[in-house]
Parts: sequence; structure tokens; C-alpha cells
Amino acid sequence: ADKWYERLKMKGYLQVRTDSVMHEDGGQLHIQNDPFANDQSSIGIRRGRLAFSGDLTNHVYLYFQADLFGGVNGNGGVQARDYYADVSLDPAREHRVRMGLSKVPYGYATMQSSQNRLALERPEAISTAVEGERDFGIYYMYAPYEIRERFKNLVKMGLRGSGDYGMIAFGAYSGQGINKPDTNGQPHWVARATYPFEFDNGQFLEIGIQGYAGKFNTTTAPINGVTPNNGNGNNRGITDARVGISAVLYPQPFGIETEWNWGKGPQLSNDMRTITSASLSGGYVQANYRHVFASQKEVIPFVRWQTYNGGRKFAVNAPKDKVNEVGVGVRFIPYPELELTAMFMHGMRTNTNVAPYNNVNYDYLGIQAQVNF
Amino acid sequence: ADKWYERLKMKGYLQVRTDSVMHEDGGQLHIQNDPFANDQSSIGIRRGRLAFSGDLTNHVYLYFQADLFGGVNGNGGVQARDYYADVSLDPAREHRVRMGLSKVPYGYATMQSSQNRLALERPEAISTAVEGERDFGIYYMYAPYEIRERFKNLVKMGLRGSGDYGMIAFGAYSGQGINKPDTNGQPHWVARATYPFEFDNGQFLEIGIQGYAGKFNTTTAPINGVTPNNGNGNNRGITDARVGISAVLYPQPFGIETEWNWGKGPQLSNDMRTITSASLSGGYVQANYRHVFASQKEVIPFVRWQTYNGGRKFAVNAPKDKVNEVGVGVRFIPYPELELTAMFMHGMRTNTNVAPYNNVNYDYLGIQAQVNF
Amino acid sequence: ADKWYERLKMKGYLQVRTDSVMHEDGGQLHIQNDPFANDQSSIGIRRGRLAFSGDLTNHVYLYFQADLFGGVNGNGGVQARDYYADVSLDPAREHRVRMGLSKVPYGYATMQSSQNRLALERPEAISTAVEGERDFGIYYMYAPYEIRERFKNLVKMGLRGSGDYGMIAFGAYSGQGINKPDTNGQPHWVARATYPFEFDNGQFLEIGIQGYAGKFNTTTAPINGVTPNNGNGNNRGITDARVGISAVLYPQPFGIETEWNWGKGPQLSNDMRTITSASLSGGYVQANYRHVFASQKEVIPFVRWQTYNGGRKFAVNAPKDKVNEVGVGVRFIPYPELELTAMFMHGMRTNTNVAPYNNVNYDYLGIQAQVNF
Repeated sequence: ADKWYERLKMKGYLQVRTDSVMHEDGGQLHIQNDPFANDQSSIGIRRGRLAFSGDLTNHVYLYFQADLFGGVNGNGGVQARDYYADVSLDPAREHRVRMGLSKVPYGYATMQSSQNRLALERPEAISTAVEGERDFGIYYMYAPYEIRERFKNLVKMGLRGSGDYGMIAFGAYSGQGINKPDTNGQPHWVARATYPFEFDNGQFLEIGIQGYAGKFNTTTAPINGVTPNNGNGNNRGITDARVGISAVLYPQPFGIETEWNWGKGPQLSNDMRTITSASLSGGYVQANYRHVFASQKEVIPFVRWQTYNGGRKFAVNAPKDKVNEVGVGVRFIPYPELELTAMFMHGMRTNTNVAPYNNVNYDYLGIQAQVNF
Repeated sequence: ADKWYERLKMKGYLQVRTDSVMHEDGGQLHIQNDPFANDQSSIGIRRGRLAFSGDLTNHVYLYFQADLFGGVNGNGGVQARDYYADVSLDPAREHRVRMGLSKVPYGYATMQSSQNRLALERPEAISTAVEGERDFGIYYMYAPYEIRERFKNLVKMGLRGSGDYGMIAFGAYSGQGINKPDTNGQPHWVARATYPFEFDNGQFLEIGIQGYAGKFNTTTAPINGVTPNNGNGNNRGITDARVGISAVLYPQPFGIETEWNWGKGPQLSNDMRTITSASLSGGYVQANYRHVFASQKEVIPFVRWQTYNGGRKFAVNAPKDKVNEVGVGVRFIPYPELELTAMFMHGMRTNTNVAPYNNVNYDYLGIQAQVNF
Repeated sequence: ADKWYERLKMKGYLQVRTDSVMHEDGGQLHIQNDPFANDQSSIGIRRGRLAFSGDLTNHVYLYFQADLFGGVNGNGGVQARDYYADVSLDPAREHRVRMGLSKVPYGYATMQSSQNRLALERPEAISTAVEGERDFGIYYMYAPYEIRERFKNLVKMGLRGSGDYGMIAFGAYSGQGINKPDTNGQPHWVARATYPFEFDNGQFLEIGIQGYAGKFNTTTAPINGVTPNNGNGNNRGITDARVGISAVLYPQPFGIETEWNWGKGPQLSNDMRTITSASLSGGYVQANYRHVFASQKEVIPFVRWQTYNGGRKFAVNAPKDKVNEVGVGVRFIPYPELELTAMFMHGMRTNTNVAPYNNVNYDYLGIQAQVNF
């Protein structure tokens, strides 16, 4: 396209959120990826995104996205969420190199946009791998033309797919988290394979496998006056490696998705004196039912169970994090540019924000209005 | 509209400012909303705005705006100023729900854009209610079609109206200030009614009334080693409620506007030991004369008197703030995309930035070039 | 143009960088304008720019640019890099006033965009004058129509010119650095004259001269418990003035460019107790060869020698900074929207980041992929 405004398209979405904590005992509820799930918050913006993307030429595709409320719970500083280019290696654009700030290709829930996810926040077992989902990296990605089209269609058809991160992807990324400089001079390595099967009856089933490995430097701070020893790291980091599997039956009309991962990662010792690499595991199962009315309105009830048991490396001191939660919710879509969600969660989880890192039993309700453009 | 660039339009304005303090005694001049009114500053950008807005569909209108110099006096961090959607409830779009980050519908001077205001900064009596003018909120707004058009025309005709925030508006907002998370779990409530009368001779007179109520948590810091006690708040906040009236005769060619408000809000005690809810009041009167030359150039001399007596809740420790100021200025508009302003201010006000919060007598001059697009 | 998207065009570029320190002795390598030149970094984004610019009308040209990774080494906060307007004083637009946040017209290497520069970072001798290249200011600029066209063509022809900052420019700027408020109430003054000669054989030679003067307030912090005395400043700043010359023979196909400047500026004393105004000098010479293949691909080998001896005023405590470096590199341009660069640097320089400010001998390699749009 000749004109900049035809080459690049602007898109975005806005999530206005209010949460109500109905019950908490054993300590104060803290949910790493839901800053509204506490007694202090009232009304706010959970995500306010703005993106430009498009094919610059036949060789290069560009994507960038900013969040206008990038600081958790909105300090109002605009933050980059993505800024990457895909450089094609062949005319059919089946092979490409991605470079810049981009989602790390690990896990279906990580790849799926928050704009499309039914649950208000990602499941802890997967999101603790790459909080913020993104990092600075360079990847090779491959998918045949037909599969690239299928990935696109799984979004366009309203099936809330993950988008196209390649059928096969591998590469290196900085590893200390979104928008953070690396601290140990060595990248993390990641690989992922996923395949969206299409059956004769029109159903889609996507199966994926992924893994990453690297060294992670956890931030430390004093607990009762004693700063935990950063273990065997010597400032070069602690072993941080996982493998995971994903399976998604897209909702036509009944859908089910599950992911599970296992590995080792930084974790605070029980005596709170040392951070070492410890085992972790967890996953989630989600079922949903998509009903599209004749008027094109949609209603999608869903239920999700998630569990996690392992360190939360991105938290200060990497405390041990236990999560066991059932959530039930419904999304109502009166017209495509507006989506309303209510979700009730019941469970137990560690407050990974404040020592002594209590396990808290809780019930809370989140309500969200999302505007798409 | 089919195309994103037809649905959403980009607008913005840039204010380049230089101030000169000609006289100050009793302490150092500090003006909360003019970071250039001091001895240290020379040349800078007061506001650098960029906004996208438009009707996504017949149901949803979107507005977002960023300030490229959001940090006071420019630390260069880009900050969100607005990100909201108006969801229409009827085909004529007379009833709507606004949600997101938006101006709080309290006061004419708050609603009027800084792009249109003649005085360099807002009057203290009104702006102390909602510094930064915005918060996270949800509002219902109503205005008949005819009145919505009139609000638009009061801007288009160059009369520097406030824009369309509904003839009637009420709702809830977070309450701790622009881009700040709530801290007490309860919203502020606000309601406003305003009506722009149109007389047979073509004159417009807008009369408004507004009020809000909530609990506000003031930030505290030590004064001579003693941190003030946050009063009766128990961390749930201190009573913060106001009512106000507004009247604007639009300049055809002579205009006058006035607003006054009264209420209670957080205020530091005289012994600087406690913050409690204390009475406050204040307002302003401004007169102006708009001359449009045959060449379409404009010159608008104006004079404003403002006074305020009450706590400044958004300042650390919420010190008692006294303001009594006369300002005289002129705006010259050589062509629509460029506006030049000079304004001289003479008065007394409290330096609410540094204890012991002196009252300072001052004269200062501000000069500004504004570019509109 | 009637439409906002025709008036304003969006452009930008993305630089993905990885550096490898191959040798360092005498201390840890620190390069003020290359956050990747150390042992901690791996992969990252050096610059991620996005700009809108265009003629609003015949009178006013607007330019703004943001960096999505404005915080050094990417904390992800979006920062303004430019936001200025050029107001024309005559119909031919040969005379104009520029105001806002803009590059300070001092030095060819400062004016040349990082998008066009061959070397990965600017030479220290010039960039220490205005780190970040920009400040809040107001300037008068003049260039005849023909010369304005020539400045544009020196970029369009792929000769990597500096763009049009006037043939003659002078003005005032805040002086404390990009996006920082002034601290001494007095601006810096700057003037520049440059002329791009065009010879009969089609070669271009640009010769420039520039100078600035002002008072600069250096930030101080304790060294071994003692904070340096901010010298003769009395908080009004220390004398900061330079003159410089520039000469650029554009690469058709062989090019050479050189700049040199001399002056006085804030510098920490040898006993690290006082900051005073001390002599400084330095410059660089760069040679390059541009080969354009029949396929329009380009390869440009280049070599640069740079030296500097003087204070680094923008660093905390303004330590004495010695630089002596040779760099050799090559840029390969497979198609206009993608540029690949490798550059190897060998030299000695002061680590101006950490006392006792060691001189470090080093070798390092930087590799960069740049996407233009």
C-alpha cells in the first residue's frame, strides 16, 4: 500500500474493571495479575491498549502496541507492550525471523490476547513463566500458508484463538521480564510447536508443546531484616526451565482448553534465607459454551480450575506460591465492540507480595466492560 | 466509517511556556498547576497533547488522549489523560454511559479544555476539587440532541465552550486523583446539571450546578520530624464534599464567567499535627472581550479575580491554602492554528509545597504560544 | 490537505541490538550512550521510535516523536523525544521560528538521525554537549528555498544527511537536558551556520560552524561519603560554552566527515571535592564508502576515530572523561526497510558512571538490525 494509513492499521481495546473481595481469611488477598482484587481499589482501567500494525512491504511486517496504564494498577505511565518486526525469508512468507519486544512463544494462554481471553486474568501456572508475556528476543517462526490462515481464522470466527506465533518457533530472549534489561548476559532459550487440527465436522483442536531454559536473577529485599542469599547464582542467575503441553478444543459450541507445565525455577527456601532452584508444576482446565443469538449477540458461560505449586520468580524474593482456585463466569457480547464479563473466584493462594507470604482463602467477584476497536 | 482513519481522528495541541517571577515576598512562590512560575524555570512545554477520538459504531464513541509531558514540569514520561468510551443507550444517542479515565463532571472550568481556556491555568477554588481534572469512573449522561449540538457549537463558533459532558450527569469515580489507584475501596459520587440558554439575540448563557461527596486519603510526610495524624480517617479517608454553581455568558463580544463552590475537605490543623475535614470555599469571576478582525484574526483581552480558602487535599499533608489573585491578560490569534497569550498575575497565595506553608505575595508574568491541530 | 491523515504522516524505526564485550581491563566498561556494551546485557531494543509530522497549514509545521524505550536500556516508559512547531514568517517559508522540544542545533552528528548514522552511537566529543540531543527551546531558523530542498535531498538520495535545521539558526534553550526542567532560571544560547556546497560533478560538501554558552547545574552525589562542592555555581550553574566546526563530504561513493569542538564545561576536580569549569576538546573523523548494487542493495563499510578530553556534565558529579577509540564497521541494506550493522570498537575510555572513574581499555562488538517505516 502506498499510504502510511493503509499500510498500518490502528487497533486497541479498553478494559474498565471493578472487583469486590467478598471473603478473605488467613491474610490479605494479593493476585499478581489483578491489581483490583483487594479492599483498597474501586473503579479502574485494567488494560488500555493502542496498537499499530501492518505489512510495510512484502518483506517486513511491523507490530507495536502500547498500554496507557502499563504500571500495575495505573500510575498512568504509557508503556510499550510490543514493538517487533517480522522479516520474511521466503516469498510465501512461511519462514520468518521475529525481533524486538514480543510475546515469548510459551503456552497458549500466554499467546492468547487478553482481549480474547474469557477469564479476567491468566492462570498462574503458565503466567509465572513469563509475567507480562513479553521480552526482548529474536525468534525463527515457521508455518505453512494454510496454517497461518487457520490461525487467523480461529480469531476472526470468534473462537478466541491465540493468533499466529508460528507452527514451529524457537529463539532466544533476554529473560528478566518485559521491558527489563538483562542482568546476567545470557539469554533464555525457548521452543514451541503447535498444530491446529481441522476435522471434517468443522471442529478445531489445537495441540501444543513448549519448553524454555535459562538462568534468572531474582530481586531480593530484607525479610525481618535479613536479605535472602541469592543462592547458587553468583549473580549469573538460578536455573529456570520448564516444559508444558497445551490442548484447546475450540467452542463450536462447547469448548475445552487445558495447559500443564512442569519444571524448576527460583524459589525462596522455607527458612526464608536462600533462593535456590526448586521444582514447580501446575496448570488449568477451562470449559466454555458459546451461544450466538440470531441477532449476533453472544453469551459465553465458562468455568475454570487452576492450580500452581512453585516459586514466583518475578516477585521480590521469589516466594513459594500455592494456588488452587475455581472460577465461574459469563461473557455477554451485545455487539462486537462491547463485551461484558462477570467472574466469581473461590480458592486459596499465597500472598506473594508481603512476607511471611501467607496462604489466603478467598472469594471475589470481578466485573469488566471491554471496548474493542 | 469503514476505515480506521475515518472512524478515529487525531487532534492535539502544544503549549510552549515561559514565566517570569517579577516579585515575591514572604517565601517562595509555588503554584500547583504552573510549574514554570518560579525562579528556576526558563523555557518549557506546559502541555503537549495528542488525542484520537471518534465513533466506532452507532453504539460506541471512543476518546483517548495522552500528554507527552505528563509529569509535572516535564520528566518526559508520556501519560494517559483520557481513555474512555461512551456507550449509547438509545438510537438518538441522547442517553449514554461513560466509562474509563475521563474528566470528572464538576465545574465549568474543569470541563473546559486548556486548549480553550483564556487564563494560563485553572482557578484554584475549582481545580483543588479534582487536580488533573480526571479520574477513573463510570457516569450516566443525558442531553437532548439539540443541546448536544449546542454544546458542540459553543466550541466550533470560537466561544470556547466546555464541550459536551451531558446536560445531566451523575456517576461514581475512584477519587484519589488522575491515574492513581483508589486507596479506600469506596468511590466518590458526583452529579451535575447544566443548561446553555440561547436567547433571541443569539447570546448564550450557561448555568450549572454540581456537587460531589466521598472520602479522601491524603498523603502525609513529616513536618519537623512529626508526621501529621491522618485524623478520623482510619485509612478509610476524610470527608470530602462540595457543591458549586457556574454561570457563563459567552463572549459575543463581551463575556463573563463565574463559578463558586463550598464544602468540606481534608485540611492540616493549625498546629500541623492532624488532618481533619474542614470548611472550604472560593471561586472566580472572569470578564473578556472577543474581537474578531475582518482578516479572521482575533484578539481577546481578559481579566480574572480568584479566591480560595480551604485545604489542598492533593498536596502532601493537605495544607490550608489561601489564594487571592487578580490576573489580566490578552490572547492574540493570528491564525486558527496558533494562539499567543500573555497574562500578568498579582496576588497572595500559600506555598502548599513546603512546610511551614508560607503565604507569599507575588507578581508574575506568563507568556505562552499554543499550536492547535 | 483536508484530512488529518494526509496532513500528518507516521514514520518510525526500530533498532534491535546485541553487544558483546570481548575485552576490558582497568575497570568495567561503561558507555553513556550504549546501554548494551556490558557483561549484563544480552538482547534488547536500543531505539523504538514513532513519529507524526507534517504541515498543518501553510504557516505551521508540526513534528512529534516518541521513543518507546526512552529510559536508558529500556524500562519501557514511553518518552517524548520531539514535540515542536515551526511557524513560518514568510510565504516562501524560508524564515521560521521553531519552538518546543527539539534537537539543539549544535553539531552535524547531533542533527543527523540515529536512523541514518552509520556508527552505532554518536561520538562522545559532540554528544557530551547535548546528551539526548534535545531540549526545550525557541529558535529562529533561516534557509533559502533551494538550500532547504538540498537538505531534504541529502537524506532522500540515501546520503544520510542531517536534515533541515536551517542554514542559519540561533536561539535559546532550557539547558539542563532532554525532558528536564531548568534549574537556574537562565537559558543556554546557541547559534549555528552550515552550508551544503554542490559541485559541478554532483558532489556535496557541507561545512558548518556552531557555538553555545550557558550555565549548567551538575547533579552531585557522595564519593566515599563526601559530596563534591558544586563550585562557583551558587546553584546558578557553572560556565558551559563550546565552539565547534563540522565538515562532511557526502559518500558518492567515498565520503568523509569530521567534527571538532573546544570549550569549557563542568568537571570534577582531581581530588574529587569540587566541580568547576574546565577546558575540554575533542572530535572525530569518519570515512565511509557507499556501494549500491544493481539490485538496489547497499553495502557501506566505514571506519571512525574519536577522541574526547573533558568533563561529562550530564553524568553525576561531572567526572573527567577521556575517550580514544577506533571503530570499524559495515552496514548492509538488503532492502530499504531493513538495515543490518556490525561495528567493532577498540579503545580506552573513562567509566563515568562509578567513582573512582577508572580508565578502561576495551574491545567490543555491536550488532544491530534496524527496521525503517
